[in-house]
Amino acid sequence: MQRIPDEEFAQRIISIQKKLEENDYDAYLVHANETDHGNVRYLSDHWPIFETAGVIIPRQGDPVLLIGPEAEPFARERSRITKIRKLLAYREASEPDYPGMRLPSFRDVFEEISGGEGIQRLAVGDHAIMTLPVYEGVREALGEKGRIIRAEWLISDLRAEKSENEIAMIKEAHRISERAFEDILGLMEPGMTEKKVLGLLTERLYHYGAESEAYPNYVFSGVKTRNAIGQASYETLKEGQLIQLCVGARYGGYASSVGRPVCIGKMPARVRKSVQFGLEAHKETFAWIREGIPAKEVATRYYDFFAAHGYEDNFLYGPCHGCGIGENEKPWIETNSEYLLQSNMTFMADTFFAADDFGFRWEDGIRVTAEGCEVFSNIRHEIIEL
Amino acid sequence: MQRIPDEEFAQRIISIQKKLEENDYDAYLVHANETDHGNVRYLSDHWPIFETAGVIIPRQGDPVLLIGPEAEPFARERSRITKIRKLLAYREASEPDYPGMRLPSFRDVFEEISGGEGIQRLAVGDHAIMTLPVYEGVREALGEKGRIIRAEWLISDLRAEKSENEIAMIKEAHRISERAFEDILGLMEPGMTEKKVLGLLTERLYHYGAESEAYPNYVFSGVKTRNAIGQASYETLKEGQLIQLCVGARYGGYASSVGRPVCIGKMPARVRKSVQFGLEAHKETFAWIREGIPAKEVATRYYDFFAAHGYEDNFLYGPCHGCGIGENEKPWIETNSEYLLQSNMTFMADTFFAADDFGFRWEDGIRVTAEGCEVFSNIRHEIIEL
Repeated sequence: MQRIPDEEFAQRIISIQKKLEENDYDAYLVHANETDHGNVRYLSDHWPIFETAGVIIPRQGDPVLLIGPEAEPFARERSRITKIRKLLAYREASEPDYPGMRLPSFRDVFEEISGGEGIQRLAVGDHAIMTLPVYEGVREALGEKGRIIRAEWLISDLRAEKSENEIAMIKEAHRISERAFEDILGLMEPGMTEKKVLGLLTERLYHYGAESEAYPNYVFSGVKTRNAIGQASYETLKEGQLIQLCVGARYGGYASSVGRPVCIGKMPARVRKSVQFGLEAHKETFAWIREGIPAKEVATRYYDFFAAHGYEDNFLYGPCHGCGIGENEKPWIETNSEYLLQSNMTFMADTFFAADDFGFRWEDGIRVTAEGCEVFSNIRHEIIEL
Repeated sequence: MQRIPDEEFAQRIISIQKKLEENDYDAYLVHANETDHGNVRYLSDHWPIFETAGVIIPRQGDPVLLIGPEAEPFARERSRITKIRKLLAYREASEPDYPGMRLPSFRDVFEEISGGEGIQRLAVGDHAIMTLPVYEGVREALGEKGRIIRAEWLISDLRAEKSENEIAMIKEAHRISERAFEDILGLMEPGMTEKKVLGLLTERLYHYGAESEAYPNYVFSGVKTRNAIGQASYETLKEGQLIQLCVGARYGGYASSVGRPVCIGKMPARVRKSVQFGLEAHKETFAWIREGIPAKEVATRYYDFFAAHGYEDNFLYGPCHGCGIGENEKPWIETNSEYLLQSNMTFMADTFFAADDFGFRWEDGIRVTAEGCEVFSNIRHEIIEL
């Protein structure tokens, strides 16, 4: 198995500490739950299950992985951060008491990482998912004078441009997804439930070496193809109905997604026309992407492309969102995105189209290059009729 | 497919409203993320993916399902609550901006559910997982005079005793898990990675009708069997090594778990002795459970049983935690549990044993009855050597 080397993890900590120094922050705290674990994984390689987790990095000295009461052996096996502390704030959502277990507080951790001086200016990187027990613990430990400063940018800027090792992981994840996708086309049959197909697909992902699904993979049929978000159901596949497959393996910590609309039998003409338009919009995105291009220009062109073809009511967002450890992570490419595309930024080109009675998504991981755009999955950019 | 009837969902809302009245609370707010979605599922049947979600119930009038900007068609398909509002506080963790999209605030929702009077005393049911964007939105909407009151008990008391429909779901979930477990015993071979086994197992769960895994199922081998929490890895199965399987299907919203230590070939004598002891402790738990017994008495007996056999250093917690929508949910059975067991409370009997170089877990769903304890999975309560 490939893995990100320890030195690269160490370098990430150093990069954060440099920014703490530049901004006069005393420490940086990030958070993770089972679903959204990007920043903790990026800094420690730990992925909390059942419990939550955090990483705290002082301006100088060693970072600490913060876990719940039950995860220690698992965390020790995984973590690239040696110091691990168990705090009740990271316990399971069902709030077990663990009577008799003595655990440190945030105050103890702050004392330890600051050499007894305490923390005054704490920058935090996961406002969107930070829980109240963590917030309250931190607030109490900071005391009256201490401040919490939102600073998601500090780590999301770092994560946006990928290293060679990270890109290798993302490519391997897409390779696994492509192989599973090709297999599932041969396994699907009319009458199968979407859930049964999802089971077969998941088996294929692990068979080809996936660490896990990158997200709950999509097998939606009929009217449910218009759902931007959803879950495979007990509906059965039917001939002549659109089926949306989004196949995403996680590998070495990194996510992939290969999204394709498919049909068992012939795609109805009206649907086929929209799917063909979507594929063209998707390929236009590839063509617009290049180092130095303002991100919002890609988004504006994308919306204009929809509008010029009479499809202005059929989009929800787009055309791209960041990807890496998260299948979706910062930055998004939207009409208000005030940054220039940089080489080795990675995105999901995510062409989502919703009509009243159907929808679809073309989705592929891509990398920004000096010359344009490297697409991580090029299979089946075509009308797929089985 | 079986499902909880609409009337039972409506009755749950009425039960909450009765408690709001009794306690002079104006409204009740619960929260869900992709992993921990119990209360929102219990009240609405919605299960957020990528985004988070909430349900708010006013003392009088209609409850509202609160979702993120992208989940509307999915939520409308699933939700038993008709009123649905999209709030930015429930968006994805990657914080997309959705430029141009106009969304209501918590203040708008509070106005709507209170008939313009506003909310003063807001009881909340998910302190452990509530995020800062939701907390801050609620705080602002409450104004200076408004109060947030922690009231997890309000819904956890209601959820603790299961209805006939809920028990039918939990039983079916265990039936699926048992069948998948029996199949996987025949599919595992030395040299397979734990992850490959997990893929095969997941396929079996969906094959037999699971809605999903109830939690990330466990396939741990060798030293990793001592992990209370963990994930299947790329380690390969070896003859004569302990393998921990925890197989848990979700069905109709409800979780199951069948945990068994198994061995390909002969279990080493020292390991076998501990596994046999664990099975006896597990069966003792079944024997102690009965309506009217103080919960803490079961926990104290369990610890004493470990200690009497010289295994006091080998337990982490136990012997039971609540189960239902969550594979683990309130209430736990611990030495400080101040309540009496009631009929139709459901638990996971979770006999976890950790030594330095191995560990194991016997786990089964159970129901408290007037006469004792109904065990939902009785297969293979034996030393399992393949």
